[in-house]
Amino acid sequence: MNASPYPVNGERLWQTLHSLAQIGATAAGGVARVALTDEDRAGRDQFVTWVRELGCTVHIDQMGNLFARREGSDPGRAPVVIGSHLDSQPTGGKYDGAYGVMVGLEVLRVLHENDLITAAPVEVVSWTNEEGARFPPAMIGSGVYAGAFSLDDGLAAPGVDGTTLGGELARIGYAGTEPCGEPCGEPSSTEPCGEPASTGPCGEPDGAGRRPIGHYIEPHIEQGPILEAAGVTLGAVTGVQGIRWYDVSIEGQSAHAGSTPMEHRADAMVAAARLVCEADEIAARRAPEGRATVGTLSVGTGSRNTVAGSVSLTVDLRHPDAAELEAMHDELLAFADGPAFGPQHSAASSGVRQHSAASSGDRQHSAASSGDKQHSGRSLPRPQIVPIWYSPPIVFDAAVVDAVRQGAVAAGFEPVDITSGAGHDACYVSMVAPTGMLFIPCADGLSHNEAESILPSHATAGAQATLNAVLALAR
Amino acid sequence: MNASPYPVNGERLWQTLHSLAQIGATAAGGVARVALTDEDRAGRDQFVTWVRELGCTVHIDQMGNLFARREGSDPGRAPVVIGSHLDSQPTGGKYDGAYGVMVGLEVLRVLHENDLITAAPVEVVSWTNEEGARFPPAMIGSGVYAGAFSLDDGLAAPGVDGTTLGGELARIGYAGTEPCGEPCGEPSSTEPCGEPASTGPCGEPDGAGRRPIGHYIEPHIEQGPILEAAGVTLGAVTGVQGIRWYDVSIEGQSAHAGSTPMEHRADAMVAAARLVCEADEIAARRAPEGRATVGTLSVGTGSRNTVAGSVSLTVDLRHPDAAELEAMHDELLAFADGPAFGPQHSAASSGVRQHSAASSGDRQHSAASSGDKQHSGRSLPRPQIVPIWYSPPIVFDAAVVDAVRQGAVAAGFEPVDITSGAGHDACYVSMVAPTGMLFIPCADGLSHNEAESILPSHATAGAQATLNAVLALAR
Repeated sequence: MNASPYPVNGERLWQTLHSLAQIGATAAGGVARVALTDEDRAGRDQFVTWVRELGCTVHIDQMGNLFARREGSDPGRAPVVIGSHLDSQPTGGKYDGAYGVMVGLEVLRVLHENDLITAAPVEVVSWTNEEGARFPPAMIGSGVYAGAFSLDDGLAAPGVDGTTLGGELARIGYAGTEPCGEPCGEPSSTEPCGEPASTGPCGEPDGAGRRPIGHYIEPHIEQGPILEAAGVTLGAVTGVQGIRWYDVSIEGQSAHAGSTPMEHRADAMVAAARLVCEADEIAARRAPEGRATVGTLSVGTGSRNTVAGSVSLTVDLRHPDAAELEAMHDELLAFADGPAFGPQHSAASSGVRQHSAASSGDRQHSAASSGDKQHSGRSLPRPQIVPIWYSPPIVFDAAVVDAVRQGAVAAGFEPVDITSGAGHDACYVSMVAPTGMLFIPCADGLSHNEAESILPSHATAGAQATLNAVLALAR
Repeated sequence: MNASPYPVNGERLWQTLHSLAQIGATAAGGVARVALTDEDRAGRDQFVTWVRELGCTVHIDQMGNLFARREGSDPGRAPVVIGSHLDSQPTGGKYDGAYGVMVGLEVLRVLHENDLITAAPVEVVSWTNEEGARFPPAMIGSGVYAGAFSLDDGLAAPGVDGTTLGGELARIGYAGTEPCGEPCGEPSSTEPCGEPASTGPCGEPDGAGRRPIGHYIEPHIEQGPILEAAGVTLGAVTGVQGIRWYDVSIEGQSAHAGSTPMEHRADAMVAAARLVCEADEIAARRAPEGRATVGTLSVGTGSRNTVAGSVSLTVDLRHPDAAELEAMHDELLAFADGPAFGPQHSAASSGVRQHSAASSGDRQHSAASSGDKQHSGRSLPRPQIVPIWYSPPIVFDAAVVDAVRQGAVAAGFEPVDITSGAGHDACYVSMVAPTGMLFIPCADGLSHNEAESILPSHATAGAQATLNAVLALAR
């Protein structure tokens, strides 16, 4: 199957992954190698040791982003860069981030043992503080690199333990001197990637430029269930979903559950339920890319026998296509503005049957009109929807995505196109360099969890596809 | 309009109502005359003073239920009884309960000033602890009277302040000696009325019978919006809704809001929303009598960007017709058991597009298939619905209801039939005597609130209709 003239060594990759996982290993089989801790330093030291054995040079920038460089034959070419991150969640898994860096190492080892000289240099990068568990926000190392945050803000990022990112970087000996950030005067992007940034965009005079990247490939575990469910080994990541967040409040009227007819209610719970169902439909109509999540919902003063007076909830909409995401946004707002809600009280639906004086003894008049469907008079409170965040979709570079696809095919696999639902360093890097990603399956889509698990065969396949893509791009 | 030969004195009724409301009056215009407090004693004392001025005898039973009796001409007849309760919520209104007792007093006054001797005796009753605010459950005085609870349990009912009902009854001097409860050996009803009973059904040897009631009429404010919205002055209450309560739990699977396609989700929130919408529809199909309320809903571990793993909620279904209420129950359970939920994972909906090796470079394959409607593969977790309480509907006595209707017509009004959505002492009394109720409107349906408000003209109309009905039944 693997027709590549330069096969990766799957057994070596697997052993290296698990050798690295010893650093910060947890009793439950996971990894605690939180950014800029002693464990992170030990992981970085190990990586540096391994790449120096291959004759690579090591470069550290002002944010502690760590580059291993193997020179090419053409000094005018910017490097093809493979990377991800060595830091982990406090109770993280062995593969999130580490897989991408170790695949880069395996690529360097294959090039080294075959004495292959590519035209473009090849570099492997580990970005600082991808997880953001200790220094929020996440992906701040690649974020400063791309100019989404200023270097000052990145170094000043406060740790949850009272430290600062810059201080801890210096403490573990990884405060480098190579420039990192937006070159002076260059207009910076104001659209952060991933979760909302707590620090401002770049533009500070400290921005002194950045190490160049010709092409960037980030191999990663999927952190989702798609590949595994489809029985597919490799995913060519075409981009990252756009995200829109909303806060929704619904102000109805508390009322007695017994004495208040349906027609007289301003039931915030039913209004909320209709909105939840519609958000779900808006995404389901766009399967498989569309996503809608109402993850929180709370009732003002909840009582079993009281109509809910107020409900608040959140909506999270995602789509990899900006136009589709905007259409989802429009549909959500149009629904909230539509006939499912609204002030309509009519006498016809007031729920009583008139007895005239003449017929007041007539029992037929007191039969329950249970067949009635007087639904028009419903008056459900209208949801107030406040958009609070928009992260536009990211479309990766067509040439890099195609190189990943072709690399997978050359490795003997039939890749699928897939969109990332999670943020990665590749999001920021894509702002300043042609970027793509490769996904391999992880068991049950589980990640940020000590039980994170992948198959050796999948690990090997991803490394081979990456090597193939690097050789094509660095040719 | 009022063609009755014996008109009530509306001004006197209004003044009496507000004189009573001085006892326990709150700064906000309401009443705090909580059961068996000093204020309740003062209210009872005032009532006793007023009825003794009319030559009535006063009778107090073992539960402190307070009867004012005006003899009739036929010693073999059981009395026509008008009543309600003098106790209030801690921040209650001036009319809930008090209105019915003061209407009874006004009826006695009209009979007295006209020297009218009815065939049957006429009594006015104030039932002990209707609100249940201090001694749960509600309506325990009439409940013991009707045999729904034993006398022992009634007297032992613990107060929220560490007292007992029997102890406080003795303290305020209203522990009577007349028998109250199920006569020895008589089978007791096991179906309580109103809120779930915390004490068992009757059958204790202490049950020594009860004062007889020939017919019972309870005038009351509606505590709902129906009459006011319809512009109708009087409602002939045909019965009380049946109630079914449910606890619902939905166990889905937490998942990442970004990386988990809709087809792979077991979203407990969407499942809950579908159930809420359906419960609402089940009741709306049965307008105006059907009622459905989801008053509480909580998410297991709510997070804006996490698919809800578990949701719990409550459902309250009501209908005055037992068969309809059972049909609502059946429809709710059938919906939970139906195709809106269920375990369906299919490869066809796994959300990936396969790239063959041959076509891997074909961009057309990577276009988003946003027009797809692959909805069949959805796998929403099935709600687990546990019925926790059933209170069957109560149908009031046809003759009493008709007497109320005709009384209203004779007073110059066109009454509507209406069902009570709240519990009343009439619920329990109806278990052992022919019973009916009369409703007058209250502003905005507001009750159990210091702002509770009614119109003098409505108060007068209700009193006149009650007098007319009493005269007809006691003839």
